[in-house]
Amino acid sequence: MQGLSDIGVAVIGTGFIGTVHLWALRRLGVRLTGVLGSSAGRGAERAAALGVARAYASLDELLADPDVDVVHVTSPNHAHYAQVKAILAASKHVICEKPLAMTSVESAEMVELARSSGRIAAVCYNTRFYPLNQQARGMVGAGELGDIRLITGHYHQDWLAKPGDWNWRLEADEGGTLRSVADIGTHWVDLTSFISGLSPVAVLAELATFIPERQKPLGPVETFARTSDRASETRRIQTDDAGLILLRFDNGARGSVTTSQVSHGRKNAMSWEISGASASASWHSEHPDHLWLGHRDEPNQMLQRDPGLMNATGSAAASLPGGHVEGFGDTFFALFRAVYADVLAGRRSPQSNYASFEDGHDEMLFCDAVIRSARDGRWVEVGGRE
Amino acid sequence: MQGLSDIGVAVIGTGFIGTVHLWALRRLGVRLTGVLGSSAGRGAERAAALGVARAYASLDELLADPDVDVVHVTSPNHAHYAQVKAILAASKHVICEKPLAMTSVESAEMVELARSSGRIAAVCYNTRFYPLNQQARGMVGAGELGDIRLITGHYHQDWLAKPGDWNWRLEADEGGTLRSVADIGTHWVDLTSFISGLSPVAVLAELATFIPERQKPLGPVETFARTSDRASETRRIQTDDAGLILLRFDNGARGSVTTSQVSHGRKNAMSWEISGASASASWHSEHPDHLWLGHRDEPNQMLQRDPGLMNATGSAAASLPGGHVEGFGDTFFALFRAVYADVLAGRRSPQSNYASFEDGHDEMLFCDAVIRSARDGRWVEVGGRE
Amino acid sequence: MQGLSDIGVAVIGTGFIGTVHLWALRRLGVRLTGVLGSSAGRGAERAAALGVARAYASLDELLADPDVDVVHVTSPNHAHYAQVKAILAASKHVICEKPLAMTSVESAEMVELARSSGRIAAVCYNTRFYPLNQQARGMVGAGELGDIRLITGHYHQDWLAKPGDWNWRLEADEGGTLRSVADIGTHWVDLTSFISGLSPVAVLAELATFIPERQKPLGPVETFARTSDRASETRRIQTDDAGLILLRFDNGARGSVTTSQVSHGRKNAMSWEISGASASASWHSEHPDHLWLGHRDEPNQMLQRDPGLMNATGSAAASLPGGHVEGFGDTFFALFRAVYADVLAGRRSPQSNYASFEDGHDEMLFCDAVIRSARDGRWVEVGGRE
Amino acid sequence: MQGLSDIGVAVIGTGFIGTVHLWALRRLGVRLTGVLGSSAGRGAERAAALGVARAYASLDELLADPDVDVVHVTSPNHAHYAQVKAILAASKHVICEKPLAMTSVESAEMVELARSSGRIAAVCYNTRFYPLNQQARGMVGAGELGDIRLITGHYHQDWLAKPGDWNWRLEADEGGTLRSVADIGTHWVDLTSFISGLSPVAVLAELATFIPERQKPLGPVETFARTSDRASETRRIQTDDAGLILLRFDNGARGSVTTSQVSHGRKNAMSWEISGASASASWHSEHPDHLWLGHRDEPNQMLQRDPGLMNATGSAAASLPGGHVEGFGDTFFALFRAVYADVLAGRRSPQSNYASFEDGHDEMLFCDAVIRSARDGRWVEVGGRE
Repeated sequence: MQGLSDIGVAVIGTGFIGTVHLWALRRLGVRLTGVLGSSAGRGAERAAALGVARAYASLDELLADPDVDVVHVTSPNHAHYAQVKAILAASKHVICEKPLAMTSVESAEMVELARSSGRIAAVCYNTRFYPLNQQARGMVGAGELGDIRLITGHYHQDWLAKPGDWNWRLEADEGGTLRSVADIGTHWVDLTSFISGLSPVAVLAELATFIPERQKPLGPVETFARTSDRASETRRIQTDDAGLILLRFDNGARGSVTTSQVSHGRKNAMSWEISGASASASWHSEHPDHLWLGHRDEPNQMLQRDPGLMNATGSAAASLPGGHVEGFGDTFFALFRAVYADVLAGRRSPQSNYASFEDGHDEMLFCDAVIRSARDGRWVEVGGRE
Repeated sequence: MQGLSDIGVAVIGTGFIGTVHLWALRRLGVRLTGVLGSSAGRGAERAAALGVARAYASLDELLADPDVDVVHVTSPNHAHYAQVKAILAASKHVICEKPLAMTSVESAEMVELARSSGRIAAVCYNTRFYPLNQQARGMVGAGELGDIRLITGHYHQDWLAKPGDWNWRLEADEGGTLRSVADIGTHWVDLTSFISGLSPVAVLAELATFIPERQKPLGPVETFARTSDRASETRRIQTDDAGLILLRFDNGARGSVTTSQVSHGRKNAMSWEISGASASASWHSEHPDHLWLGHRDEPNQMLQRDPGLMNATGSAAASLPGGHVEGFGDTFFALFRAVYADVLAGRRSPQSNYASFEDGHDEMLFCDAVIRSARDGRWVEVGGRE
Repeated sequence: MQGLSDIGVAVIGTGFIGTVHLWALRRLGVRLTGVLGSSAGRGAERAAALGVARAYASLDELLADPDVDVVHVTSPNHAHYAQVKAILAASKHVICEKPLAMTSVESAEMVELARSSGRIAAVCYNTRFYPLNQQARGMVGAGELGDIRLITGHYHQDWLAKPGDWNWRLEADEGGTLRSVADIGTHWVDLTSFISGLSPVAVLAELATFIPERQKPLGPVETFARTSDRASETRRIQTDDAGLILLRFDNGARGSVTTSQVSHGRKNAMSWEISGASASASWHSEHPDHLWLGHRDEPNQMLQRDPGLMNATGSAAASLPGGHVEGFGDTFFALFRAVYADVLAGRRSPQSNYASFEDGHDEMLFCDAVIRSARDGRWVEVGGRE
Repeated sequence: MQGLSDIGVAVIGTGFIGTVHLWALRRLGVRLTGVLGSSAGRGAERAAALGVARAYASLDELLADPDVDVVHVTSPNHAHYAQVKAILAASKHVICEKPLAMTSVESAEMVELARSSGRIAAVCYNTRFYPLNQQARGMVGAGELGDIRLITGHYHQDWLAKPGDWNWRLEADEGGTLRSVADIGTHWVDLTSFISGLSPVAVLAELATFIPERQKPLGPVETFARTSDRASETRRIQTDDAGLILLRFDNGARGSVTTSQVSHGRKNAMSWEISGASASASWHSEHPDHLWLGHRDEPNQMLQRDPGLMNATGSAAASLPGGHVEGFGDTFFALFRAVYADVLAGRRSPQSNYASFEDGHDEMLFCDAVIRSARDGRWVEVGGRE
């Protein structure tokens, strides 16, 4: 492979996030070989709608295609483990949506498989690739905030706020035991760990299911789609509508985050504030082109994403001049640009800072600790044993 | 007493918050009889600077003044208990700054004394009297948010962010065992309980002291004043720079709040978000004239403080037309207007919604639970016994 | 007079803005002698409601009161001229609401009378006294923005947006030929001239009356009150619902401002942006505690009102620590504090920067130029002759 | 042509905006045949960097390529006229960056050529395709704001704020007589006309050149790039750093807009506010996923871009669920998606609302009127003769 257009890429999953992957891949200029849908029919239909030449009939068919160098996994969570194993076994690079697996046992195995495969293996924590999040990481790394003391924030959504809202994530056997914490909370933990360079060593968690019964439509439902009038059945829900978590970090810093999928009016509101010994920073996903920098003895700053004003880490993830807002889709472009540079090089660069399978596994261990802490009402070590 | 100008009022404390009381009292039109400073000299000096006719030499002198009907207590926390006892014993009405006392034993006694005295006894939780907080209470009461599910937020400041920052609150014997939680956290808990009509029944708390040693200047320091070059001594600090607290409410709702006095760039940033089964609301103290209302299936709203747009509860606390921002000082005016209406009437009206001594005692019980929970790392019932 | 409490003050006008004056005067600690209402009955009624000891039956009675040292004029615009003349003739100091007069002929005479009287004569352009506007003036004066190039902004309200909305300002014989430009536009021009130190030398204006007929209620109407169902008569309106004005300043800078009283949703939205050769600044009246500072080659800044962060000019107008929002009412306190310091001193201090009668007259000349420019559709010099 | 992947597309220009076109085209799934750079060498270099298979050596070579169905023109303004003529003469569809031409004589001819060619001819006013701008157009069309009264706003940037900043647009022979007005002001006029359905019939303009001399580097300069230390020569500048324009619309509405490329801290700040007889709306390009809706008698609304909350016009331009911000790049995708649907259909659909050559010509007539008005200091009809 000489250039990006020489790399053949297949995408598993053709829903909302699969389409976002596909758009970013095309923009990047890699060669899209085909997609794999949840069924052969669905795959063919979506391939036509998206202008993709080929719809694979099965994962086997996809993996047998010698043109495929890299596979993106955007299927429901429960399918990640088996698909990624097969992809690595076929000696292809893999970019997997989060969460990496359903359990930390699975993800631990996936880390080992990735390691021994020598393939590029990335987890799609795309929010790292908002350029101002990269900027913040660069700033913390350069000591501009001083020793980190406090990391707070939330990730609130409203698309599951009503009893009639449905999605496969609601049921533990498809989405996993945790819902809001796994689906969006791990984004927040991955991002703040990435920026601060700190790992949570212990958690105290409270989980809440405010809507114990929901109406499940008899038929497929798209993520973020709204309640319909279709026929439905009542289902008992045990996954978390909301999570409230306290964190202790390895350097003595403390953290707090809340997750919610039932907060009316919050569409996709992820926010963090990191306070250090000499300055603070804060960012909100619904205004991603602005980074707040807090000072005690001089005016606060509002840094707009602008390659001319950012540090090298931040600028590397940016595509546009200041004031020309970059959005959600652009983070996938920046992430994939970094991953495919490594694909071309044949190995992960020391400078690369996209989430590895190790990072994805860390989030599974975090989820384990959350589950145990919520059950027992006490602090639980992350990575510790039952 | 026929009207406000017939009511004689004395103010204990002549610092930042005492001055704010005095300004609001004058604006209200009650008769200011005098002030009591931390010393006779300090009191005389401040009385002259503020244009107050009289500086009492002692609490005894103040209480002996037959012209005094109401006493405001804005002294350091450790003095509240004894002063309030004396004031009630002298059959005068009392408006006490928060926290009501140093311990819940004290505050429990104060509740009894207030009850048996028949005097008006208010605690100065002024943030209730931002008109949009009153509006929010009215909305919750009318069911406009549906059953409350999630109450989240923070109260972050930066005036103690550096080792050279000093205030009497830093030391437990003057300010109490808790600092950020007692000083600002109870504002948040009182406010969100007031709005939601819910009480926290259990807490899980984590306390952090990020600056274990500070430089105490040899001389007096004004609240919110900055570090100086004056001579100082090193003091070991055990009160909380930050608190991270999870809450369980009596109806099954959950909450999370963080407090911090070391967050660079956050001057006085108190924020709450309340999410119910049908809508959400959110407010921030640094933009107090705007109330965010969140909706799932229609656009969110940004309600500006405007008597023409607010409900009766909200409008009652407002003084100015929409767009003419009301600030911190105006909350004291609105609060005192409500209290003095009751003073004139001779008893608390059923409609009155300023904080009573019972409310102030509740915050002391909350602090007790926070201390025990932080010590033990487990959920602790509010109001429960050791 | 030794101190503020020795100064006797009377207020003409007991409506919305008269009440705001009265509140600030009490807070300041001057001695309020009485108020004069639009009628003896109205005055007595408002005096009782506001807790003011005396309601003067007439201006003569007020001026005959030897206890009155200073008179505040908050009556409708058409009354200012005669009242101020009488006040100065009675050798009392005067603080007059804007606009100073109905015509520049009147205001020119008032300037002369004030000058020869030796009394303090101030015009109530209160927005100068938001501390961050003072801060901005200090910054421009210190050269921190460089040579000023561009001054833009608007002043939009919505309280006259509907045909049923009524106020005395709508009719030229009570409010003057200009409405939105005179009532709110001159606030903007005064403020931006104050901050920038620049005077507009020529204007190009367009005036619009979007609601040519309105329903006038048969009975009194409070400013900012809403449409009612009361009996009304149809009136032809010729004053401006909106004004659009271009400006040329004496140093070659250019400006643009729009005024509107019919912009739904804008309650009292006054905003300016001043751009210089080295930096920019911007401020909005509905978030008055934040000042935006714009930079080309470093992050923008958001300066919160904070005595610890402001220059001397800004700090002098502030009363509260950062984060404790100051609002509309506080500007009157800061303005009056400055004026009454001069009243005590017996003359205007060189450091005083409240609006003088000369400043008030400048706004009348500005209005003259606007009227002529709008009529002729061409640039007109401010202060030039027909 | 059956589908998007059957359409062959070439892009003229490989700078900032040419790259943005290319990214959106790839994402859309059309077949990119090649690019044409400012020189053969530059074209080859950029093609390699962007992963484009072919760099045309000349426009002739490009037009001779039978695989090319559509040509995008992103060259400097002075080249548009000749290139577009040649493209239409070669019977290819064309999408031209704004401004369409250097003069209205040119653009009038281009309109005729496009009309007679039967080809799709679009002008790249991409800001129309922020989904909330489409939403606003839909709302106005449905009468939700009532009769439009006032259209105000600005377009401010800072990339030419300093004497050392250079770009080909600074000189009239490459960029045209107007600079800030033509380059960014016409974006604002096109957008607000699009949303409101109103055309400006007369303008009153003031132009300002605050930096009369600039340093021109001896070598190429990228748009939005910063000052360098390279050797330079002093050039006299006559194009406008800023423009201040008043507008009269055909229905009696009035407008005001300012343009500036020298406003420190404003990176790409385009904002409009449209006020009608029953409601208002406002939008800002640096927060493009939020639309403010202003109301007199109910709370204002903040509509986030969300296909579930928008009207059909708005939703048609959106790609992502609410809260997942769409940015600058996404507008090109939405615009091109609309244009290429027409390319596939062979003719412009009645529902299409991207800017036509007629719209582009209107902006040239607007510029003519601005130039004449600024010269004469009087109102000038748009489309009128000298």
